[in-house]
Amino acid sequence: MTAPRRDSKWWGWGEPERLPELDAAALAMLRERIGELEPWPLARELGEFELPRAQGLPPALVDAVGAENVFDSTEDRLRHATGRGYADLARLRLGALERAPDAVLVPADAAAVRRVIDASAAAGVAVVPFGGGTSVVGGVEPLRGGFERLVSLDLTALRGVEVDPRSLTARLGAGLRGPEAEAALARHGLTLGHFPQSFEYATIGGFAATRSAGQASSGYGRFDALVSAIRLLAPAGDLDTLETPHSAAGPALRELVVGSEGALGVIPEVTVRVRPAPAVRRYEGWMATGFEAGAEIVRTLAQGPGLPTVIRVSDEEETESSLALSGPRGIAGRLFGGYLAARKRAGGALLIVGYEGDEESVARRRALTVRALRGGGAAYLGGVAGRGWEHGRYQGPYLRDTLLGMGALVETLETSHTWSRLEELRAAVGAAIRDTLAAAGTPPLVWCHLSHAYADGASLYFTFVCRARRGEEVAQWRQVKTAACEAIVAHGGTITHHHAVGRDHAPYLEAEIGTGGIEALRALKERLDPAGIMNPAKLLSGS
Amino acid sequence: MTAPRRDSKWWGWGEPERLPELDAAALAMLRERIGELEPWPLARELGEFELPRAQGLPPALVDAVGAENVFDSTEDRLRHATGRGYADLARLRLGALERAPDAVLVPADAAAVRRVIDASAAAGVAVVPFGGGTSVVGGVEPLRGGFERLVSLDLTALRGVEVDPRSLTARLGAGLRGPEAEAALARHGLTLGHFPQSFEYATIGGFAATRSAGQASSGYGRFDALVSAIRLLAPAGDLDTLETPHSAAGPALRELVVGSEGALGVIPEVTVRVRPAPAVRRYEGWMATGFEAGAEIVRTLAQGPGLPTVIRVSDEEETESSLALSGPRGIAGRLFGGYLAARKRAGGALLIVGYEGDEESVARRRALTVRALRGGGAAYLGGVAGRGWEHGRYQGPYLRDTLLGMGALVETLETSHTWSRLEELRAAVGAAIRDTLAAAGTPPLVWCHLSHAYADGASLYFTFVCRARRGEEVAQWRQVKTAACEAIVAHGGTITHHHAVGRDHAPYLEAEIGTGGIEALRALKERLDPAGIMNPAKLLSGS
Repeated sequence: MTAPRRDSKWWGWGEPERLPELDAAALAMLRERIGELEPWPLARELGEFELPRAQGLPPALVDAVGAENVFDSTEDRLRHATGRGYADLARLRLGALERAPDAVLVPADAAAVRRVIDASAAAGVAVVPFGGGTSVVGGVEPLRGGFERLVSLDLTALRGVEVDPRSLTARLGAGLRGPEAEAALARHGLTLGHFPQSFEYATIGGFAATRSAGQASSGYGRFDALVSAIRLLAPAGDLDTLETPHSAAGPALRELVVGSEGALGVIPEVTVRVRPAPAVRRYEGWMATGFEAGAEIVRTLAQGPGLPTVIRVSDEEETESSLALSGPRGIAGRLFGGYLAARKRAGGALLIVGYEGDEESVARRRALTVRALRGGGAAYLGGVAGRGWEHGRYQGPYLRDTLLGMGALVETLETSHTWSRLEELRAAVGAAIRDTLAAAGTPPLVWCHLSHAYADGASLYFTFVCRARRGEEVAQWRQVKTAACEAIVAHGGTITHHHAVGRDHAPYLEAEIGTGGIEALRALKERLDPAGIMNPAKLLSGS
Repeated sequence: MTAPRRDSKWWGWGEPERLPELDAAALAMLRERIGELEPWPLARELGEFELPRAQGLPPALVDAVGAENVFDSTEDRLRHATGRGYADLARLRLGALERAPDAVLVPADAAAVRRVIDASAAAGVAVVPFGGGTSVVGGVEPLRGGFERLVSLDLTALRGVEVDPRSLTARLGAGLRGPEAEAALARHGLTLGHFPQSFEYATIGGFAATRSAGQASSGYGRFDALVSAIRLLAPAGDLDTLETPHSAAGPALRELVVGSEGALGVIPEVTVRVRPAPAVRRYEGWMATGFEAGAEIVRTLAQGPGLPTVIRVSDEEETESSLALSGPRGIAGRLFGGYLAARKRAGGALLIVGYEGDEESVARRRALTVRALRGGGAAYLGGVAGRGWEHGRYQGPYLRDTLLGMGALVETLETSHTWSRLEELRAAVGAAIRDTLAAAGTPPLVWCHLSHAYADGASLYFTFVCRARRGEEVAQWRQVKTAACEAIVAHGGTITHHHAVGRDHAPYLEAEIGTGGIEALRALKERLDPAGIMNPAKLLSGS
């Protein structure tokens, strides 16, 4: 077995060679809005890291996967020591990690996962399930929860694909990355339709464990809605839900495993709903008169004839400055030109609208959507705008690396609420981010978009950029993250629409689900994982 | 407070005066198929029942609701002693109930429910939450689970209605019956769209507690899909889910409360998704060449352009004989005429297809559906067939009373599976019912229909009628029910698609959710209801 996950930057996102540059106009805009940035280079090379000394593993745990599937080099430990949130990237850039797993185990199949769990429970070794390692909320942080030893359980090798073409379902191994799953399904003429920004690296197991939502979830459904059956290997035993999810046999245990974030056990495979691969993919841009008008169009569609496959409304700030950041030369530049032309109406809000399906269904749904768009006062920007979005749909994390290197703090966070309280929540969270950072002398750019809609409400996704406070990078981040979370909780939004709880949101879970909810989760945790070895201190902060 | 639930037959279903008769043709068909029936009159009047002696209640429990809301007459105890399954009706007809609650409590609001739970937990009194009392699986049976005293907690008085017209949600009191909830929503121009056969008596709380599905669930969604937020008053404390359900904050606790069947606590209110009341309701009949061809049409729709609001496919036996049973004179008779005309194709399968919405949406969806119907070889029967179905949509339980009085056993049961295994399951369950009853000398009529469809699978609903074995009515029922359940389990179907677990399905729950699933539910039960007072021996048979 070769070591897993060597195909991305150790210090940032994705392909090592890919690091987009900003052009002069974008740089000028940034400087004007957030001030002069001071470059933030990597403090050291990978080989120079000093990780905490690795504890030896019990022989039974090595035997569980076979010695050839145990990796304990500095590189492998480091590559499994963090996710890809801002705080992770800051620590890597600063060249200092307080924590790392003692080793990375790569089980070949579900039986080996079971052996790892049993051996770990017997010997008191903490286990952190590791999918794509793309968590932005500390979901894979090697927190020991009182155990002396901790292993990262890399699920890369769980790669089964079993398709039921008649029922349009597929059983997929947890370790398949987004593109791998799509490629396997494409051989059957099918698609899963799950495209989060982390698509290129995140895995099927991670999608399920975190209740992921993707850019096309308005059309295909959130990942939780795509799961038809699921398996959990818990320390106390296996939990398999029935092949059919359409049952009235008590509480839905499927919905307990989905979102369990490795804290109850390991998800080795997921059965998902799949669809015929679309013959047509059509994305286009529209310009609404403002964010609220754009959101109202989306509400009309969600409560009426239905949503297109993709629908996203950027607020005025995001419409203006995120396009500027993409640079005027590329496809985004052409979009930017169209945008400027359309922007004779001041303060417009960009909508990206996409349709996937066969030709007839795309035409039918587009006709209904266009009527709502025109009825809501939106102006057509054309297909170039849509293709610009498509081209850049997985680019955000690459651009984040660029901005960090320039000396910026870049973070995203997301929430959702009912339509009747969405605007209140948007104002409160935006103000919390702006005010906190401005008061600390690092005024931010704050962008917001709505990218997942439902009949009863929608998500809000915030991105903000400001000068990193050098020497206090993580503390600065924690301060603004705390302010945003408190604003969300105060206004009744969810603490996370699709990033999951992990470590960062765990302190706010009780505000969301109440003491009764916490008690219910604790009861499950204690029964399914009596020794408490599974992903300690995630989801439930005290666990 | 007047005593609750006096507006229906004490010994059967619904309005006391309503007892449809079968005409000569239907009687002849029945006689030919299942043999001569021997009338089965009520053994005694309500006033002649001897119930087990009522145990006195602890004063704190009386105080919890106020003495004026405690009902302990024989009639009130008897009316809360059973649901409306065949075994319930047989026991009432036989004039002998082994069990009854000691009293019926009618809390005025959620605070009174909380006081009842606390007082019951303190004094060791079992509590059976009672909604519409329409359970057909023993869900409200007064099983004491080792406690000396048991109360039926009648939730009739929980009747709040709070509408959020912008988010299209409504918070509804658990005690509202289907028509009451619809009437309240109609005042806002809205509908819930949940119409199970028990609609006229079943309640909002019961829909949630049992994961109900209704006749229009293909269009509006199962009740579990309509719940956006829910409240549980458990002995250990309250559990409130967030106003927005679109969250990645861990396991979905909403999905633990939905389907909890009173075993974890009481659901005092449910927030549901609502929709504009449809301007148009159009139901029509089609005739497919057979059940499999009809099911294939439904699969095409579910996996393609989407389902109409109502879609139901009767198998050949149900198509032929259930129409005959409805009698040739009424609307159903006109349908029957159309059916006969269309049936020059032998062995046809009746489809009922319904569309609800505004005129344009009905026309649009109908065009897509009609194309699939014609493509699948179905012939149009016209609107009379649809109106016949509409007229009789809540009639089944009334007809059951008639048949019981004539001396028949009548039972229904339901399951679901993926499309790839649906036919296998249908054959196995049908054979189990037929063979068991035929071998015992009471050959049945067995009907099956598909009435809820999904992209990945569909439900199957079986109805069967045979001669009741007098003196062994309940044992006869148990024998065939057991055979059917075992066939379902053996073929991987769910033990219940929408009737819930209750008492009757509890022995099969482990086969469905595994020991891991049972452990998870037990952990929740023990934490949320440490004394075990909530609906003992339901859902989890050993609890």
